[in-house]
Amino acid sequence: MIFLDNASTTKLNKMAISEIEKSHDLFYNPSAVYGKSLEVKKLLDEAKNKICNFIGTKFNSNLIITASATEADNLAIFGSVKKTDEQIVFSMGEHPAVFNCANELKARGYNVVFVPLNSSGEVDLNILAEILKKPTAFVSIMHVNNETGAINDIAKISKMIKSAWPNAIFHSDGVQAFGKIPVNVVNLGVDLYSISGHKIGAPKGIGCLYVKNISKLKPIIFGGGQEFGIRSGTENTQFILALAKVVENLDVVKNYDYVSNLNNYVREFFSDKQGVVINSSVNSSPYVLSISFDGVRGETLVHLVEQFDVIIGTGSACSSKKTANNRILQAMGISKKLNEGSVRISFSVENSLDEIKTACDIIYSQYLNLKERLK
Amino acid sequence: MIFLDNASTTKLNKMAISEIEKSHDLFYNPSAVYGKSLEVKKLLDEAKNKICNFIGTKFNSNLIITASATEADNLAIFGSVKKTDEQIVFSMGEHPAVFNCANELKARGYNVVFVPLNSSGEVDLNILAEILKKPTAFVSIMHVNNETGAINDIAKISKMIKSAWPNAIFHSDGVQAFGKIPVNVVNLGVDLYSISGHKIGAPKGIGCLYVKNISKLKPIIFGGGQEFGIRSGTENTQFILALAKVVENLDVVKNYDYVSNLNNYVREFFSDKQGVVINSSVNSSPYVLSISFDGVRGETLVHLVEQFDVIIGTGSACSSKKTANNRILQAMGISKKLNEGSVRISFSVENSLDEIKTACDIIYSQYLNLKERLK
Repeated sequence: MIFLDNASTTKLNKMAISEIEKSHDLFYNPSAVYGKSLEVKKLLDEAKNKICNFIGTKFNSNLIITASATEADNLAIFGSVKKTDEQIVFSMGEHPAVFNCANELKARGYNVVFVPLNSSGEVDLNILAEILKKPTAFVSIMHVNNETGAINDIAKISKMIKSAWPNAIFHSDGVQAFGKIPVNVVNLGVDLYSISGHKIGAPKGIGCLYVKNISKLKPIIFGGGQEFGIRSGTENTQFILALAKVVENLDVVKNYDYVSNLNNYVREFFSDKQGVVINSSVNSSPYVLSISFDGVRGETLVHLVEQFDVIIGTGSACSSKKTANNRILQAMGISKKLNEGSVRISFSVENSLDEIKTACDIIYSQYLNLKERLK
Repeated sequence: MIFLDNASTTKLNKMAISEIEKSHDLFYNPSAVYGKSLEVKKLLDEAKNKICNFIGTKFNSNLIITASATEADNLAIFGSVKKTDEQIVFSMGEHPAVFNCANELKARGYNVVFVPLNSSGEVDLNILAEILKKPTAFVSIMHVNNETGAINDIAKISKMIKSAWPNAIFHSDGVQAFGKIPVNVVNLGVDLYSISGHKIGAPKGIGCLYVKNISKLKPIIFGGGQEFGIRSGTENTQFILALAKVVENLDVVKNYDYVSNLNNYVREFFSDKQGVVINSSVNSSPYVLSISFDGVRGETLVHLVEQFDVIIGTGSACSSKKTANNRILQAMGISKKLNEGSVRISFSVENSLDEIKTACDIIYSQYLNLKERLK
């Protein structure tokens, strides 16, 4: 099985597995008062420190553990916004975990504004500058796009926002950046930053929200007061430890180079193939590659290549079933026909170059077969 | 180690461990379109069906998976209430996961009313009947109290609510009932019922909300539309399978009898001991026993017995650190002094009678020592 839908989710990595299996006995409730619980609490704090260090922050209280990046996004947004006349700004490129919060806020009567994307899939900074002329309370712009790998210049965007509206809160969904490109939340200038475990080999069911200033954030889940009162519920000890173990052993730069090589192979392979268009700009994250196959449906191609044990995606699993029309590609101005023929190939450091070569051959031959059949 | 704080959390049981370890490779995203993902989706649906069957409902869409019972409680409450003049009714006995939602609603200006407890720790049904004379939109009353084991007659309460206000929504936090006493959500007459994994040997990080009529519930977490659009976020496949495996193998009636025997031993052991008062009524769930030791602080006793490898609790781990005064015992009319001297002993089917005998000896001798020292 050649798995090339790693932007959707990843195989559990060996260190995560070993950490989960080692922690079966760490069952004591970290909130209890006795010694065994305090030992677990200490391990949790150490794990959180490792994740904090990995994203360039020192303090444990800057990290709120959630069950998913989706929950982290929701906490960032609903925990920050207040109903005022000031704008709440989102990019058109956001993952449904943010985009559907934006739609919900709009439905509740908030002043929601969307920033369009340029043809590379990045947020259009000229239009953002225009939008920021009006009073702005909150901005959420993702770091790396999950459909195309387009990278937004978060540090630059932060400066634009803060120089215009120093009190505006800036959130970035970092799910496709975390563990894949260097992330330093302080240098990025974000107030809130969401990350996920299961896109980098950690388990499904764990995410985090980096919070620069916890006093500005309200909880969306109330209860026993865990996570500094911001996110109640008994901690998922095993998965927090597993995530920390994964990040502790990640070599982001080395992996980036390795995956770039895989990505380049695919780009070159398809560069001279008629009817095949690479949608991801060359400046994108190497982990995600959007490709359109003219004249066929992306989903059909996905099913065909799976018969040859190659798994690629139709785009975000979180929105894949709803429509053949990819919202992000549409926002980039890609034609309806190429949009319908789009697939997403997304890499992991666990993929070998041989796998990629085999996959390219299979994808292309299946594309040719399918086009032939449709004639 | 004799662990007697099972109402706080439980040791991961063998079947849960085996299911987690067997499912490391089931990493495909259940929301993707390809075959491998559909296989995982099918396993998830089967697991949900097992949990549904266990609580007496047939339909998969009646169960929303969450990361904790706390999240399930929050979803039940914030996903149901609307701002009207009608009352929103909570019991004084609720766990912080519900109680702090009630406080939040109050702070937001909702018409929140609390029903007091009787001296047995159950909701006072006479006062509830009085309260229900006024228009009521939503009621949340727990099934089994986490501090005392007091059992509320949920079926009777449901009839009281529904006969007075047929459109009122009735939620019950079933965390300490699920897997411990027979639970049939249809017979209980609840609209919403919260359950947790980690109180019955399943992992921490998984809970569920039973939902009778999904069209009446709004999401509190928005995104990719998982869980019928009610709870977005990539599913925690491994822990859902583990929870299903645990419930599938539970023999509630047999375990109830077994644990009753343990509970009775403790009750009898302390029955003739001066200064020791059993707070839990004889009608309570056998899994939880609140005991007060006159003249000492419960927390001190907890620390002392831990030195002899006996772990008991000070009450809800979710509120244990905040105050020596237990809110539930206070609501039952227990004196401040006995409240401060209270501990919670909570059982699991994994405890042996020998363990219980040893624990009683240690707890009592440490109590006597402590009292002697304090003279």
